[in-house]
Amino acid sequence: MNTTSIIQPDPKLDLVLERVIDVPRDLVWKAWTTPEHIVKWFTPAPWSTKECEIDLRPGGMFRTIMVSPEGQEFPNLGCYLEVVPNERLVFTDALLPGYRPSDNPFFTGVVSFATEGSGTRYTAIAIHRDEAGRKQHEEMGFHDGWGKALDQLVAHVKTM
Amino acid sequence: MNTTSIIQPDPKLDLVLERVIDVPRDLVWKAWTTPEHIVKWFTPAPWSTKECEIDLRPGGMFRTIMVSPEGQEFPNLGCYLEVVPNERLVFTDALLPGYRPSDNPFFTGVVSFATEGSGTRYTAIAIHRDEAGRKQHEEMGFHDGWGKALDQLVAHVKTM
Repeated sequence: MNTTSIIQPDPKLDLVLERVIDVPRDLVWKAWTTPEHIVKWFTPAPWSTKECEIDLRPGGMFRTIMVSPEGQEFPNLGCYLEVVPNERLVFTDALLPGYRPSDNPFFTGVVSFATEGSGTRYTAIAIHRDEAGRKQHEEMGFHDGWGKALDQLVAHVKTM
Repeated sequence: MNTTSIIQPDPKLDLVLERVIDVPRDLVWKAWTTPEHIVKWFTPAPWSTKECEIDLRPGGMFRTIMVSPEGQEFPNLGCYLEVVPNERLVFTDALLPGYRPSDNPFFTGVVSFATEGSGTRYTAIAIHRDEAGRKQHEEMGFHDGWGKALDQLVAHVKTM
């Protein structure tokens, strides 16, 4: 069963961030899958992550609350689809925990980790329903935002 | 990792069909996961299934075209979420193949098979976004339709 080729990003619809970072992938995995780590890096400052709840298995909850600099809260609720330790995490807001279809799907996220020297090749893909979704995510600052969050992740992992 | 308790049907939102059938579960699995078998039983007569395409892995395509007695075609496109041979199949139309969020999600389906004597305990669950989705599915004839399709499955498996 080939599970890697199922993700085929379409440049019109999807966004990709790929970078080699100088921290080991088992710690990157831990930072992505543990609520107490997530709240330290997940949302680019001056935004922050107030809460995080994780049930790390297919169909399990992935819930965060992001907070704007003005204090407005933005809850996100979805579930995991694939959990391959130290390798790949797939999650979506198109399905709530227990695989229930959601009201307002925005994207599926795929983050992959591969060892590269003493560091990690980090690939994040956002898969959208349509071109409008991709544009919206771009205008929300996907590249800057996910890039800055990744800087925060690396800085946080170095304190772990 | 507990993968069985993630599905928790809510009577307000979900529909369940459970029955013991007198055919072995490996053949029931085969009937559910092979296009040439699906077209023989999947849609209650006088409706029929014209086409079926299956890529049997998480994120892989599950596509059918149902045809009404008047000849009108109803295409369905979704993907698999869990594939546990002879045990459980989870699929949804909330995500297209490759986990892309879809435009018009209706339900996630969970079919489970357990050996019972020389037969199979067959459980089918339809998980909807909301109460309106559950009612719509009920009015489309969930219980009669899925029950009749199951009769057709049993009759077909006996010819396999």
